[in-house]
Amino acid sequence: MIDLDGTVTVAEYLGLRLRQAGVEHLFGVPGDFNLNLLDGLATVEGLRWVGSPNELGAGYAADAYARRRGLSALFTTYGVGELSAINAVAGSAAEDSPVVHVVGSPRTTTVASGALVHHTLADGEFGHFARAYAEVTVAQATVTAADAGARIDAVLLAALTHRKPVYLSVPQDLALHRIPAAPLRERLTPASDPAAVERFRAAVRELLTPAVRPIMLVGQLISRYGLSPLVTEMTKRSGIPVAAQLSAKGVIDEGVPGNLGLYAGDMLDGPAASMIDSADVVLHLGTALTAELTGFFTHRRPDARTVQLLPTAALIGTTRFENVLFPDAVAALAEVLAPSAAARGVPSIPTARSDISEMSDTAILTQDTFWHEMQAWLPAGHALVADTGTSYWGALALRLPDDTVFLGQPIWNSIGWALPAVLGQGLADPDRRPVLVIGDGAAQMTIQELSTIVAAGLRPIILLLNNRGYTIERALQSPNAGYNDVADWNWRAVVAAFAGPDTDYHHAATGTELTKALTAATGSNRPVFVEVELDAFDTPPLLRRLAERATAAAGK
Amino acid sequence: MIDLDGTVTVAEYLGLRLRQAGVEHLFGVPGDFNLNLLDGLATVEGLRWVGSPNELGAGYAADAYARRRGLSALFTTYGVGELSAINAVAGSAAEDSPVVHVVGSPRTTTVASGALVHHTLADGEFGHFARAYAEVTVAQATVTAADAGARIDAVLLAALTHRKPVYLSVPQDLALHRIPAAPLRERLTPASDPAAVERFRAAVRELLTPAVRPIMLVGQLISRYGLSPLVTEMTKRSGIPVAAQLSAKGVIDEGVPGNLGLYAGDMLDGPAASMIDSADVVLHLGTALTAELTGFFTHRRPDARTVQLLPTAALIGTTRFENVLFPDAVAALAEVLAPSAAARGVPSIPTARSDISEMSDTAILTQDTFWHEMQAWLPAGHALVADTGTSYWGALALRLPDDTVFLGQPIWNSIGWALPAVLGQGLADPDRRPVLVIGDGAAQMTIQELSTIVAAGLRPIILLLNNRGYTIERALQSPNAGYNDVADWNWRAVVAAFAGPDTDYHHAATGTELTKALTAATGSNRPVFVEVELDAFDTPPLLRRLAERATAAAGK
Repeated sequence: MIDLDGTVTVAEYLGLRLRQAGVEHLFGVPGDFNLNLLDGLATVEGLRWVGSPNELGAGYAADAYARRRGLSALFTTYGVGELSAINAVAGSAAEDSPVVHVVGSPRTTTVASGALVHHTLADGEFGHFARAYAEVTVAQATVTAADAGARIDAVLLAALTHRKPVYLSVPQDLALHRIPAAPLRERLTPASDPAAVERFRAAVRELLTPAVRPIMLVGQLISRYGLSPLVTEMTKRSGIPVAAQLSAKGVIDEGVPGNLGLYAGDMLDGPAASMIDSADVVLHLGTALTAELTGFFTHRRPDARTVQLLPTAALIGTTRFENVLFPDAVAALAEVLAPSAAARGVPSIPTARSDISEMSDTAILTQDTFWHEMQAWLPAGHALVADTGTSYWGALALRLPDDTVFLGQPIWNSIGWALPAVLGQGLADPDRRPVLVIGDGAAQMTIQELSTIVAAGLRPIILLLNNRGYTIERALQSPNAGYNDVADWNWRAVVAAFAGPDTDYHHAATGTELTKALTAATGSNRPVFVEVELDAFDTPPLLRRLAERATAAAGK
Repeated sequence: MIDLDGTVTVAEYLGLRLRQAGVEHLFGVPGDFNLNLLDGLATVEGLRWVGSPNELGAGYAADAYARRRGLSALFTTYGVGELSAINAVAGSAAEDSPVVHVVGSPRTTTVASGALVHHTLADGEFGHFARAYAEVTVAQATVTAADAGARIDAVLLAALTHRKPVYLSVPQDLALHRIPAAPLRERLTPASDPAAVERFRAAVRELLTPAVRPIMLVGQLISRYGLSPLVTEMTKRSGIPVAAQLSAKGVIDEGVPGNLGLYAGDMLDGPAASMIDSADVVLHLGTALTAELTGFFTHRRPDARTVQLLPTAALIGTTRFENVLFPDAVAALAEVLAPSAAARGVPSIPTARSDISEMSDTAILTQDTFWHEMQAWLPAGHALVADTGTSYWGALALRLPDDTVFLGQPIWNSIGWALPAVLGQGLADPDRRPVLVIGDGAAQMTIQELSTIVAAGLRPIILLLNNRGYTIERALQSPNAGYNDVADWNWRAVVAAFAGPDTDYHHAATGTELTKALTAATGSNRPVFVEVELDAFDTPPLLRRLAERATAAAGK
């Protein structure tokens, strides 16, 4: 038991704060500068160390964990460790995932003296890597002897508030330094300015009361703040239709009445685009308006009739309400939304894509027949994790069964993210079996994380789309360029190497083989790996459309 | 043929500059923002693309290639790609390896408009990653339409001059932009200030003429500038003894008369320490005075009798001669050095370590018996690449056969570096067979690069020291901590997965098995992978000494 009138070590303080925020797993890689910290954290009840083969994998796992849990922690050592994870942490910044990256750094005395030590550039300068991290995190702090607890609290609160990654440096000689435990009595809770929330509520009520065709557009922040149930309830209760950005696919169950499906400007078919264009109020719930998410800027631009909810502010037109935190803004909207005329005549989204071919079972699989089979098979209650490329653009076209969590990385687009993301998602949400769809080029980036996934006791179903290289790039440019080919791996042996004898391996080149493998996967209590053979130049329809748009945009 | 009176594309210009500097291989990973660049480079004769499964591996390979060739080029895409390589590039900064990191970046029009696009933080800010790279590179430039050639030349010249990495950003829409070819008539050649060199030569002559016990201490810069033959010649001709930092092991053949072996303050036994302490002039040829390389600062500190040669300056005591480039300073020394009294009575370094046990062939291997067998087996003319940890600290104690290139990473110490380094070293120096010694924890970091090594046609001998985790950390702290254990991999299957059926796999738990495997390796024309079983807590003697020093230093 912790004596809250006494002291705890810096490591314990941090660990207890993480526990209060719902964190149970610590991701990372040990290194000499963080061993005191890890030793100190090992004494905190309810925290489990999940070591990864390398820091990039650990960072991706932490990204997915934070999405589900609202916070995660990544532990690396100074220099070599932290820099190997910076792509993952930058991705968390782009995708709004609150990862606390805790770096074990050299002793305060070493830093003060400018001593030349390992894991530095041998220039006596210890600020290089923290400055690099300041570019990709929303808050940074270095623990000091005098001000450890407050600095830890400041970065954690920033992560919880903004749903962005933060950077915390813990010098080796301070990890076990004792500090007062008293602040732990109160949980860290981001707080809005109540008066600002009240002003926003009044203003949005005024906007919405006369509206006859309001519409909601959900972005990724809804899932990051755990607000999917509330927004689902808002839709059902008010009858106001809801569309989702690509980055929010699956956030609202597709079977919910009034769910219009995906919106990405005029790049996608379906009812969302015309309804948004004709809406008299558009409520942006945590959207991100990037090229790919807006159909290359063919979306309806925010205007005087647009409400935009951001992490710490809300906008009505160009009127900005500062210190209105996202969850409070959504709650205010929920109070204000009344059943609307828009509730009448909302089209339902099609039950399946019309452009998916019927599958001929014995024929060689194509992207079309693969995704057709996925649509027929995908069970409810799973977590579908899709890597960038054909996997993501194929999966977007699926109509997801109810209670499906969908994870992608549509802004940062770092191939290889999804395999370690299965580790984070699986540990964060243990009752939901992960289904991973990933290309071979992407899987080659981070394949070693497969061993962590299996060692952690997870039993994902992994669909490896083997098209022998970077097919998304073949679609975008220079289809025959040699640089898009990757080394030929023996995937059956990859499974034997990393996933052990208790993992099922299947090979599927035809519809019959795929059906058999997926059926077996559903019935199996073990990890399942299905190598799916696909043509190097075959792409799902949405990726073709993306490539056309990207090429056209480049020509402008 | 290039018309030097005409124009070339930016990609061609860069490629031709690289060819002039001896580069024949391009490392990296494609991504949409660098495809124009890669397409343009594909037209340059004599350049070969070597794609890696991920950017960290490509960066490590480029690091090793640059060490041998004097320059290398790493190609990544913006954001996701470049950040994945930053640990490798920072390592090149620490270890003085001139890598040109070329990043394919978004179009100039995209950047100018602040558009929100993929591979960004979705904040309209395009400078984040270049600023991160400014922390770890010695020069940075972004190509512009008006000033492409000069900017390319500036960063390349900086890399050649400082033997440090540089950063070059090539916007997607400028990679195929045409620029004048005329500057290509002249090769980029770093140049000293001749008057400064003359002043330095005179001053060092004045210092050395009366000296009776001068000594040379070589650091890593000697090999980085390709000056090993010159320094060997200087030793032989003058009889002035030479010692090497750990970071320069193998730079002077150990059989050269007057080679005193390694110097790291009083941490190592052997004749170097006492001879340096009693020398009347100490010539530092490109040293780095970090904790680990100086026996935790127990070295003789530079004083008025010390000459220090740095990349762009030379020091005699505290008198600094600016714009005296390292190769010119070494050449000046070579002219000035006369046969010295020190040539008499120089002890020769012992032919083998005295503390290596005799091996009992059928007994379980230990670190002692493993390194004993390595000493007996290691053939001349190879490249020995040792990863950080037990591998490096064990290999340091070997007496290397003549004409052995030794590669380590003793300043940056990023585990996992050595496996991709085999790719770079092997391609840079194709007549020299690589021998890799690497621990299992390290190899798990970057194992996918094994497939690139084999696909490139290299046939290294890989010794995987399987001690089931991070034994260097077990030696430093908390030997039984769970975080030092790594997932158990089936290494035979790893070889099958990545290195294909044409790679020999051996398992060695005893001396007999190791002897058999090494004998077979020498006789084999194929890549060879030997999994060596070692105890989790067993360490080579030098690592034990390092751990004692590190622990003592921490207690100060």
